Amino acid sequence: MRDPIRVIVVGTGQMGAGIGRLILDKRGLELIGAYGRRPERAGMDFGEAAGLGCTTGLLISNGLADLIERTRPHVAIQATCSRLADAKDEIITLVEHGVHVISIAEEVAYPKHRDPEIAIEIDRLAATCGVSVLGTGVNPGFVLDLLVIALTGVCADIASIRAERSNDLSPYGPSVLASQGVGLTPEAFQRGLEHGNVVGHVGFPESIYMIADAIGWEIERIEESREPIVSKVRREMPFVIVGPGQVAGCRHRAIAYRDGKPVITLIHPQQIYPQLEDVKTGDRIEIIGRPNLRLSGSPEIPGGEATAALAVNMIPHVLNAAPGLHVMADLPVPAAILGDARKRVHGMSGLAGESR
Amino acid sequence: MRDPIRVIVVGTGQMGAGIGRLILDKRGLELIGAYGRRPERAGMDFGEAAGLGCTTGLLISNGLADLIERTRPHVAIQATCSRLADAKDEIITLVEHGVHVISIAEEVAYPKHRDPEIAIEIDRLAATCGVSVLGTGVNPGFVLDLLVIALTGVCADIASIRAERSNDLSPYGPSVLASQGVGLTPEAFQRGLEHGNVVGHVGFPESIYMIADAIGWEIERIEESREPIVSKVRREMPFVIVGPGQVAGCRHRAIAYRDGKPVITLIHPQQIYPQLEDVKTGDRIEIIGRPNLRLSGSPEIPGGEATAALAVNMIPHVLNAAPGLHVMADLPVPAAILGDARKRVHGMSGLAGESR
Repeated sequence: MRDPIRVIVVGTGQMGAGIGRLILDKRGLELIGAYGRRPERAGMDFGEAAGLGCTTGLLISNGLADLIERTRPHVAIQATCSRLADAKDEIITLVEHGVHVISIAEEVAYPKHRDPEIAIEIDRLAATCGVSVLGTGVNPGFVLDLLVIALTGVCADIASIRAERSNDLSPYGPSVLASQGVGLTPEAFQRGLEHGNVVGHVGFPESIYMIADAIGWEIERIEESREPIVSKVRREMPFVIVGPGQVAGCRHRAIAYRDGKPVITLIHPQQIYPQLEDVKTGDRIEIIGRPNLRLSGSPEIPGGEATAALAVNMIPHVLNAAPGLHVMADLPVPAAILGDARKRVHGMSGLAGESR
Repeated sequence: MRDPIRVIVVGTGQMGAGIGRLILDKRGLELIGAYGRRPERAGMDFGEAAGLGCTTGLLISNGLADLIERTRPHVAIQATCSRLADAKDEIITLVEHGVHVISIAEEVAYPKHRDPEIAIEIDRLAATCGVSVLGTGVNPGFVLDLLVIALTGVCADIASIRAERSNDLSPYGPSVLASQGVGLTPEAFQRGLEHGNVVGHVGFPESIYMIADAIGWEIERIEESREPIVSKVRREMPFVIVGPGQVAGCRHRAIAYRDGKPVITLIHPQQIYPQLEDVKTGDRIEIIGRPNLRLSGSPEIPGGEATAALAVNMIPHVLNAAPGLHVMADLPVPAAILGDARKRVHGMSGLAGESR
């Protein structure tokens, strides 16, 4: 049996912690390092800093290149940011050092949308360096794009696609809640939108273009709208209290047009404690076409857990992929790693798929 | 723009007809030939014989090798049978002539289960000849395996998987209904099971091993059970009448065990006119794990339409794949072809995914 797949986490926040814990648990994967941006965390034990309830013997590093040279990882999982521009430098450093990259930055799920030049730069560099780069996560990356694409696979023709994800924000921290305008008055929510403090969901264009690209639709334009979800009741969290008339979350919607007609509608209302107003959260996909399709689940697939699992579960597929920049629709479907991760990697245990 | 992707259909029955019609409709695909097993169809126009309501100018051939040599297809879609042993010779002939193969034969969805030697033979021959072979279809191939696998991708751990597909058999013909025991007495159904005339669903082990292989579970054994669905009401089709007390279909179930415990349960009740007894058909997947997941849709994804669409929609992925034998879990998710099919094929229009 070959040595384990050597993994580092880039980011030691809540998501980096969840990802690190999964890597520690999986057979065939070895967590060999952790990079954190915050200087005050340098030198701390990753397990303690990330709240894993154990020491890992891995000290958080503030120097990414140093960490790579010292630990020689096969693959890195990036969990430091949402934006492509912010994620880029770390990705470039990793790729230049011959490290495969899985990023949960939302804009990396389909980077050609936000900045085609950066996407091409990363693609070429990865191809040159012989590694793969993938953006993934629950959304963008799964519920409102990959699952939708998979369902289109049973269709002969499609008139329109509608997908909705309604979720509970209460598991999230203050910065996520602030980005959704939680606790504001409706007027402050509007000002927040204008000033860019309230952003709603990051990832609608990424999901839409991933779908359109996969099925061969040319999208003319995307219209996005963000409305406050005004609470009728009191909703209380440790660090924010929403009274009646205040904002409990953001109903963010995107509509993509083709030949002047709306063809893809994605809706993502996010709020704290939706059950207090009897709102049933969940995921729902509806395709009008040949045939018509409907698939739904309630409650929603939990975002944090799902994103961490996807990032780790995609490791074998990323190691197997042709060098370059990939999107979820270009790789095999994610699959839980419940056995030895090495068995899914070509060349690590004979032929792929030969585990039986 | 390069020439279209040249496709032949192997099989001119109901499924071959549906697949042929789709190929005729898709930009970038060209239907260039049709092979049929039945001698009486040789020389007939494919469109007329298949009931497409038009002539196609393609005469059905009884000689597969001759047809290939004359038409030089890139890819063939096989829709002649359900069993691997029955599908094998046509697949070998196609592969030896350098033709990629997509088969809707149920046992080809995961051929290592039924006959590992045939699977290895096809894999090696395909690799040698530089082509890919894939089995697909609604089930096995999609609802009870690929969709399940995709959902496991958001899981950190899984205790058990349960998936159920309840469908209406009334769109199908006499041979399918006979294989499910429709119209028999419960006693004749039992005798049919013993004699192998009543078979239920073909594909449970294929789906189970595809899932287990993808997530890394070792399956000890599979228990299958087939029970008659005894009608309480009269259900009438053109060629069979089911009276109260007679069999309207087959409730087929398979349970896979691991470490002595049931871990994958697949249930597939199939009957004619289930709505006459207020049975709601549909697809449902339930995963007990971290997190728990539930996804369902009603009515069921229509089997015939979905299988034809999957077979055609997988063409670009099969052309892009590394030479050899593949299963659905090893290739990118299926996606409807709504633009030019060539744009999804590497090397036919620059980089894959560069259609924007």
